[in-house]
Amino acid sequence: MFQSFDNKSSPQFGRERVAALRSRFAELGIDGFLVPRADEYQGEYVPESAERLAWLTGFTGSAGIVLVTQKEAVVFVDGRYVTQLAEQVDRSVFSGGDLVGEPPHVWLGKHAVSGFRLGIDPWLHGGAEVRRLEKALAEIGGSLVLLEENPLDSAWKDRPAEPLGAVAVQQDAHAGKPAGEKIAAIAAELQAKKIAAVLVADPSSVAWIFNIRGADVPHTPHPLSRALISADGKAELFIDGRKLGAEARAHLQSLASLYEPGELVERIGVHAAGGARILADPELTALALTQAIRDAGGEVVEGSDPARLPRAIKNAVELRGSADAHLQDGAAMVEFLYWLDQAEPGSLTEIRTVEALEAARARVGQNMQNPLRDVSFDTISGTGPHGAVIHYRVTSQSDRVLEAGDLFLIDSGAQYINGTTDITRTVAIGEVAEDRKRFFTLVLKGMIGISTARFPKGTRGCDLDPLARIALWKAGADFAHGTGHGVGSYLSVHEGPQRISRLATQELLPGMILSNEPGYYRPDAFGIRIENLIFVREAEEIEGGDIPMRSFETLTFCPIDRRLVVASLLTAEELDWLNAYHTAVREKIMPLLTDAAIQAWLEAATAPIAV
Amino acid sequence: MFQSFDNKSSPQFGRERVAALRSRFAELGIDGFLVPRADEYQGEYVPESAERLAWLTGFTGSAGIVLVTQKEAVVFVDGRYVTQLAEQVDRSVFSGGDLVGEPPHVWLGKHAVSGFRLGIDPWLHGGAEVRRLEKALAEIGGSLVLLEENPLDSAWKDRPAEPLGAVAVQQDAHAGKPAGEKIAAIAAELQAKKIAAVLVADPSSVAWIFNIRGADVPHTPHPLSRALISADGKAELFIDGRKLGAEARAHLQSLASLYEPGELVERIGVHAAGGARILADPELTALALTQAIRDAGGEVVEGSDPARLPRAIKNAVELRGSADAHLQDGAAMVEFLYWLDQAEPGSLTEIRTVEALEAARARVGQNMQNPLRDVSFDTISGTGPHGAVIHYRVTSQSDRVLEAGDLFLIDSGAQYINGTTDITRTVAIGEVAEDRKRFFTLVLKGMIGISTARFPKGTRGCDLDPLARIALWKAGADFAHGTGHGVGSYLSVHEGPQRISRLATQELLPGMILSNEPGYYRPDAFGIRIENLIFVREAEEIEGGDIPMRSFETLTFCPIDRRLVVASLLTAEELDWLNAYHTAVREKIMPLLTDAAIQAWLEAATAPIAV
Repeated sequence: MFQSFDNKSSPQFGRERVAALRSRFAELGIDGFLVPRADEYQGEYVPESAERLAWLTGFTGSAGIVLVTQKEAVVFVDGRYVTQLAEQVDRSVFSGGDLVGEPPHVWLGKHAVSGFRLGIDPWLHGGAEVRRLEKALAEIGGSLVLLEENPLDSAWKDRPAEPLGAVAVQQDAHAGKPAGEKIAAIAAELQAKKIAAVLVADPSSVAWIFNIRGADVPHTPHPLSRALISADGKAELFIDGRKLGAEARAHLQSLASLYEPGELVERIGVHAAGGARILADPELTALALTQAIRDAGGEVVEGSDPARLPRAIKNAVELRGSADAHLQDGAAMVEFLYWLDQAEPGSLTEIRTVEALEAARARVGQNMQNPLRDVSFDTISGTGPHGAVIHYRVTSQSDRVLEAGDLFLIDSGAQYINGTTDITRTVAIGEVAEDRKRFFTLVLKGMIGISTARFPKGTRGCDLDPLARIALWKAGADFAHGTGHGVGSYLSVHEGPQRISRLATQELLPGMILSNEPGYYRPDAFGIRIENLIFVREAEEIEGGDIPMRSFETLTFCPIDRRLVVASLLTAEELDWLNAYHTAVREKIMPLLTDAAIQAWLEAATAPIAV
Repeated sequence: MFQSFDNKSSPQFGRERVAALRSRFAELGIDGFLVPRADEYQGEYVPESAERLAWLTGFTGSAGIVLVTQKEAVVFVDGRYVTQLAEQVDRSVFSGGDLVGEPPHVWLGKHAVSGFRLGIDPWLHGGAEVRRLEKALAEIGGSLVLLEENPLDSAWKDRPAEPLGAVAVQQDAHAGKPAGEKIAAIAAELQAKKIAAVLVADPSSVAWIFNIRGADVPHTPHPLSRALISADGKAELFIDGRKLGAEARAHLQSLASLYEPGELVERIGVHAAGGARILADPELTALALTQAIRDAGGEVVEGSDPARLPRAIKNAVELRGSADAHLQDGAAMVEFLYWLDQAEPGSLTEIRTVEALEAARARVGQNMQNPLRDVSFDTISGTGPHGAVIHYRVTSQSDRVLEAGDLFLIDSGAQYINGTTDITRTVAIGEVAEDRKRFFTLVLKGMIGISTARFPKGTRGCDLDPLARIALWKAGADFAHGTGHGVGSYLSVHEGPQRISRLATQELLPGMILSNEPGYYRPDAFGIRIENLIFVREAEEIEGGDIPMRSFETLTFCPIDRRLVVASLLTAEELDWLNAYHTAVREKIMPLLTDAAIQAWLEAATAPIAV
């Protein structure tokens, strides 16, 4: 299993660990210290060795930050983690803060004494966050103190070792473009902009540029590493040598000089000397690194990571790989949905379904000789009221039985060598109330609205977002998340800059993979989400049209629960799409199935719906 | 008639006038001079006395600017005026510039000699334009020279007198809110923001705040005037006293101290003395005025005109007035459309239709004792290929016959004391090709998409814009203008900040009036636009919904040409909307008609369309 259902929190140590931290404030010359969830690589997933927030507080959520002062210890979380926080931390030590309404810099402005000295580990913070803290502290005559060592690390006796996941070469047959060409393209861009070098601080960008994958953090197969690429095309890669076998080492040595991560600051010094202009993406780069450029006399040119946009625009090989991965994943989903359908209401739990789905993916992967490498995120398996918790993660304590009348929401994904998947289906358990079917159909209309969209060059994600919502809006409802996020190629399941949301100003460019996942959530009652992955392409020419259009092509093939569709609420065009989609599911997935019973189930699950 | 069809251009004087201007460069210490279309009040419509661009060049378009240097005279216009420019100016004197791709500041950066001194009349420029010019000139070591007097004005021998349109009081029965309350609200806002006073530079804002209307410029009934309002609630109004009869004078004296326009700079000096903070909207305020604040030692606080948003949010009285005005206007439109329908194809010209429509509005206004005060803009009356010219204005030279097979597009509006209207209808002349009907129906789908939208609090105009386009996008087509603009209450037909377009980030708030006018244009062939005015309101509660929604209510009632509707392309919901709309048109307009033949025509024109 690539996921667990434990509640790993250890709240009992909070008191002594906070006390130990405070006892060092005087020596460090600080009045408070900030411990974020982030690691040194600013990633979404962090290795156990960087779970400092959980170690100190007991809180294991995926977003949060604790501020420890002499008198207070405030754990700032957003709305989805308020309940979890209350259960996981010692409330006699920690209070709860509002990460959205009153984040640390606002809290400091209101509560910190004049002249407050805030200590931070400059490897764990960067970009706009640092600027906001500096501004808030300046207003109360305080200052930010960059600590040379993180005071938690010396106190953390049983700290796990840093991960040493083996690095694998992502062959051109999957990457579609040799690493040498990617490096050359970046170097040419630097030359054109008169920039000496770029510091690539995002491990996913390093993985994409050098065509390598790793196993350091859960669910995202990038190796923790950084790189420096110069305008002359020379590259330096900073990665723990113990992660490299012979093949990976040879591959990388042909592309770059290899250094240990600890040598990065020194090498930055060499590149930045003499006022050289060094490009760095402020939102992806730790303050320690931008500071190192400045300390060496270099100029930090703030700009977008040069791999970010090219990585988002998949090439033909990556798109083909993703399509293949999705068919395989669809077969596993069909096996899972068949199994789910055979079970009596009341006989399964949320955890049992997660196990069954992961097992199906592993089994199909084995049969198709394309093994499941990981799940792409912890499966969200929520039945009944749990479906309304948008980022629900089932634990042994929360595990709930799938009962008749429930809508069961399962949002999951997989990592295969040829692609990353992400799919949500909402399934009827037994007989479901009509009103829930109505909302399911409204969500489906939004999902079809995106699937069938065509749009001219220049269209941004924000321009399409309302198409996923208008049917719900007309019914007096909405959903409180974006419509879609970018997805990587056997990389992170959450990838920028492409997305579909109210604030998504990135133009949608051919080759970008996105999720299409409208939903509806009735708190304490039920949740609905339907998600396919799609990619942008040039639309075929339309007779009578006069400007070229772009459109989406669907990657995900898996039945949408027909029992929940109220056909009379669909327009003819929407029903046509649904029936055509189910025909395609049947034609593409059927050949991958071997069990006659499952084949029969798929036949029925994809039968056309009449008006 | 409130409009003419003359081509008033006089290109024959360009040579001598440009030569006279150049002859003064040395004495003025400048290397070039900029003459914009704008007047001292930065308005959309300018009085004849401020038509400097037309006087100098012959070009009479509604947007443009000429840069005269010792060697060149470049008239910058946007795409819609390229042809008109070629016809109206002496091409041996003037060359054409690209107002969008290479506006004056870009042109100067490329072509002006180092150290270039650009003269401007600081009453005719402001805001971002000045900043862009200063930056471009600084980069070539040049400078902006603010001239005390406009060198054109002394050379312009037969310059018309400044307009002295009589000011009328807009009674509370139409305005809905006493002027004293509006002034008090603005003063309270200034107090809260610790601002001493606001300079209200927009005549439409002055008209709204003081509940007055005027007759200085075509089609927008605001009196050219400005105001200063202090945080203590005291107001000063700067207006030519000759515009004021006894009633207007008494009304205004109860609200403000009255000054002549020439006294404004001195009064600004009094208010700004001692470093006082003065609010000014940079995009609406001439540089001469912000400069006067600074010269007197004051601080310019750049911010939105405080009347702009409240003016956009119509109160209940204004909305009722607008609804009444639209019914009256709908009756005039029905009389016009009936008349148009009786005519044989080939028997009418574009000008004839403009005259007939204005006559119908005048006649209905007389009968209903609510006279037509003006048209709200020059009627766009374009048949066949002229319909594809988005801002077409018919002249005696361009006038074209309405021929069988044409789509005839007529976009017009009226000013009544209780409201401003703006309506576009596209009408079949004889038998029209099926493909044109298809595009008409696609445009109609977009128009219905906006009409039927519901949306949550926080929704901006840009969030709805795609709903007007998606049907066209799916057919490989689009339209190159926004979907809707704000409309005033017996004020400007183009009003901000509300609009529906790709860049419209203003939240749509209850009470805002907007146009809803998608279109489709096939160059050299035909044009389609369908336009109703709508206003934002809180939507009635929707059964089963869980968040409050906003929606639009339609103000415009006038048949949409049923002969152009391809019913099979409409969804059931769209057809329901169209039939319900036509029922409402019949019920609301029929009682206003007296002629039985017209009543019978309306009955047929609004008959339900079957699936």
